[in-house]
Amino acid sequence: MAKELKELTKRSENYSQWYNDLVIKADLAEQSAVRGCMVIKPYGYAIWEKMQQQLDKMFKETGAQNAYFPLLIPKSFLSKEAEHVKGFAKECAVVTHYRLKSSEEGTGVEVDPAAKLEEELIIRPTSETIIWNTYKNWIKSWRDLPLMCNQWCNVMRWEMRTRPFLRTSEFLWQEGHTAHATREEAEAEAQKMLKVYADFAEQWMAVPVVQGVKSETERFAGALDTYTIEAMMQDGKALQSGTSHFLGQNFAKSFDVTYLNKENKPEYVWATSWGVSTRLIGALIMTHSDDNGLVLPPRLAPIQVVIVPISKTSEQLKAIHDQLKPIIDGLRAMGITVKFDDNDTKRPGFKFADYELKGVPVRLVMGGRDLENNTIEVMRRDTLQKETVSLEKILEYVPKLLEEMQANILKKAKDFRDAHIYECENYDEFKQKIKDGGFFLCHWDGTEETEAKIKEETQATIRCVPFGVEQTPGVDMVSGKPAKYRVIIARSY
Amino acid sequence: MAKELKELTKRSENYSQWYNDLVIKADLAEQSAVRGCMVIKPYGYAIWEKMQQQLDKMFKETGAQNAYFPLLIPKSFLSKEAEHVKGFAKECAVVTHYRLKSSEEGTGVEVDPAAKLEEELIIRPTSETIIWNTYKNWIKSWRDLPLMCNQWCNVMRWEMRTRPFLRTSEFLWQEGHTAHATREEAEAEAQKMLKVYADFAEQWMAVPVVQGVKSETERFAGALDTYTIEAMMQDGKALQSGTSHFLGQNFAKSFDVTYLNKENKPEYVWATSWGVSTRLIGALIMTHSDDNGLVLPPRLAPIQVVIVPISKTSEQLKAIHDQLKPIIDGLRAMGITVKFDDNDTKRPGFKFADYELKGVPVRLVMGGRDLENNTIEVMRRDTLQKETVSLEKILEYVPKLLEEMQANILKKAKDFRDAHIYECENYDEFKQKIKDGGFFLCHWDGTEETEAKIKEETQATIRCVPFGVEQTPGVDMVSGKPAKYRVIIARSY
Repeated sequence: MAKELKELTKRSENYSQWYNDLVIKADLAEQSAVRGCMVIKPYGYAIWEKMQQQLDKMFKETGAQNAYFPLLIPKSFLSKEAEHVKGFAKECAVVTHYRLKSSEEGTGVEVDPAAKLEEELIIRPTSETIIWNTYKNWIKSWRDLPLMCNQWCNVMRWEMRTRPFLRTSEFLWQEGHTAHATREEAEAEAQKMLKVYADFAEQWMAVPVVQGVKSETERFAGALDTYTIEAMMQDGKALQSGTSHFLGQNFAKSFDVTYLNKENKPEYVWATSWGVSTRLIGALIMTHSDDNGLVLPPRLAPIQVVIVPISKTSEQLKAIHDQLKPIIDGLRAMGITVKFDDNDTKRPGFKFADYELKGVPVRLVMGGRDLENNTIEVMRRDTLQKETVSLEKILEYVPKLLEEMQANILKKAKDFRDAHIYECENYDEFKQKIKDGGFFLCHWDGTEETEAKIKEETQATIRCVPFGVEQTPGVDMVSGKPAKYRVIIARSY
Repeated sequence: MAKELKELTKRSENYSQWYNDLVIKADLAEQSAVRGCMVIKPYGYAIWEKMQQQLDKMFKETGAQNAYFPLLIPKSFLSKEAEHVKGFAKECAVVTHYRLKSSEEGTGVEVDPAAKLEEELIIRPTSETIIWNTYKNWIKSWRDLPLMCNQWCNVMRWEMRTRPFLRTSEFLWQEGHTAHATREEAEAEAQKMLKVYADFAEQWMAVPVVQGVKSETERFAGALDTYTIEAMMQDGKALQSGTSHFLGQNFAKSFDVTYLNKENKPEYVWATSWGVSTRLIGALIMTHSDDNGLVLPPRLAPIQVVIVPISKTSEQLKAIHDQLKPIIDGLRAMGITVKFDDNDTKRPGFKFADYELKGVPVRLVMGGRDLENNTIEVMRRDTLQKETVSLEKILEYVPKLLEEMQANILKKAKDFRDAHIYECENYDEFKQKIKDGGFFLCHWDGTEETEAKIKEETQATIRCVPFGVEQTPGVDMVSGKPAKYRVIIARSY
């Protein structure tokens, strides 16, 4: 067994360490020289590119257009929406100077005190403020609405405890910002985008999610409502994987954005914003992967099929390649990404372990006997099952297998998730069971006090009021008061 | 004529103002609230997306992979390569704090002095330093080479005089960074990427370029050689449109990056970097556009064909749409982007002017008479010529026309460029003629003194020692000394 694999911590021993190991060993990302900021390595970035391509298509189908707004935000802009600045002030990277000069000793450079900015600039933690300051000039009449822009960019939130993909000071994301004439339209947009995220998570990432609305304390800073998709990791913890916010008229009022309605009267504009980030890669890893390494859903795998020839001589290698050439071409013509790995500086055993570690969905191996028999060995990464398939059937077999795997991975994650959602009406029982993870469907009295008590005593939080769950009457398991909603409670990342 | 058009300054009156007007009126970009930073609007961004798609494909075909490195660079990293820091220190945005707090008066926020960074961080002006600090861990043996990463990102260079796309404090770009075992391989890579840029400029942007190598004073800070593509704008000025740098072992030595060669001996790695930016959009605008607005090469136009129906009644509109439906579907099936504009709040005349302003290559108009005759009016944006074409031929006609336009736009730009390249051996003549723009092919003695004198007296600079031009012997037109090269001299953006 290859060295890399031996060193991968087992999930059952230390789930957190397993995750950290896997990110490094599968060549996804690494810590950079800058505190809390990661380097996304080519293999990890290739997954992000696949995610971007599909999401971008889905956004454009809803009518959104891409644009680009400045990285830096004047400090005064942040203050304009009171809740917003409260939420972000504590994690802002601040630009104060615009020049360096040779240091006194002449050995390096230092900040030039003569180049101090009149007003400090903040590296965007999110772009509502700079975008609504811009929308002010773009929106005059009802004819300019709806206005729907998205940007793919980097943002910075100075985090004290970071983990690759899950929580980093700088991360990549997309942020959609839409402007509407009516409250109803904006609310519908926020919910529509939540649905887009949920569809993407399930159909592309094979990650089933609970959709719902956040409690007031968990809302985005400046939103009237925050919708969320919550995924369950293999340790039973929740990972908030995407959010969509109904912002009401808060930003329109802060930045004075009005439009003339059909009766020629000015009205404030209604807003939404919505975003997903490289955190999705963390969700992907933690939902499917196992002790052998990554398990990637075929639709997002950078390499979908790897072919490893096993030959004793260069003549045999050539014969294998000749035999496989039309198959490689055929698979590629179907849009399948194929790697033919004839690198002779690495042994087949090393390659097998490495491609398992990297989660390549399908491995094809051809050796001398296969060559004689016109067969090939197929291994699927999700179940690690092997099968010998005749060459003439392989072009039909592989695409079917990839589809089956995509469905199987989703089913497995869904079965796990469903087996770990508990209805619970007893706080003592809850306190006991939450230690093993899982989503708890509980009655809640709707007060911040109860929410805070649960968090303090169990480190669990109210993830959302879930959609599609019957809102039965009942009493709050903590306070004993009449419940307002049934909510999902869980520990989370 | 629509209001927007009336206000577009004519090129002959004020070329610079014409450009600024066009950027705004064609909805490409606008100044943001942050000094020197622009907002790229959806229409402008759509051009950038088309550029990215094609360039990304071309980069990947050379074996480069995408990755992502941190936005912030520790100040000390910049200092490690002496020339590099000299080149960039004066335009660095510096992050000094990581938190805001409520201001004393309680009305806003202010920088929290308790949250001062131990070492200041620089917003990347370019990423050689942080990347080579990372490569140090990735490169151990000759087996790890070549290493070729590219990233699409934003960078920041604090510019005092900015112009949309051409020179902005923040801009979007790609930067490729490659590591090689030998000098020859690195030099070949730098030249190969210059060729990729030149091909992209000519085949996709329809912008002919002069390829060459920069003089020492115009080199990238830290490079041994900088290769450049120089395009000629319609006012005869040069626009440096892309550069590729042979960095030698400078960064490998500064960051101590060595590899074990096949004899197991450590050697420093050889490097290149190469980049193009949103400046290319400026090149596109300034090369082709005219007094009616943008002229876009079909291959990069966000909308390639616009269809404007002219109808007196809603029945007639429906009949036109029914007639055109299979044509719209047919064009889209060929991968052509088509917009059917039946917006009834705008008059046809306004639409015509607006699509001309936005540079949509082909406009199809169908009215009542066309409906009777089974014809459609075709206008091409490059020559503004109109033709009536029978409907049954249109699916064949349009793709051919788009190709013809792409070639015609390139030819026009090439003819203009070639007519404005002058061989010149007399400095007085040069000083006179340079006022009207153009590229001057002159003998140069190779000294910085001559270069500085030309710049001071004429604002023109040595753009490059061009490739593919015979290096005849001669004397420097300024100093009268024996010449080292023939170079291209021009005023530039």
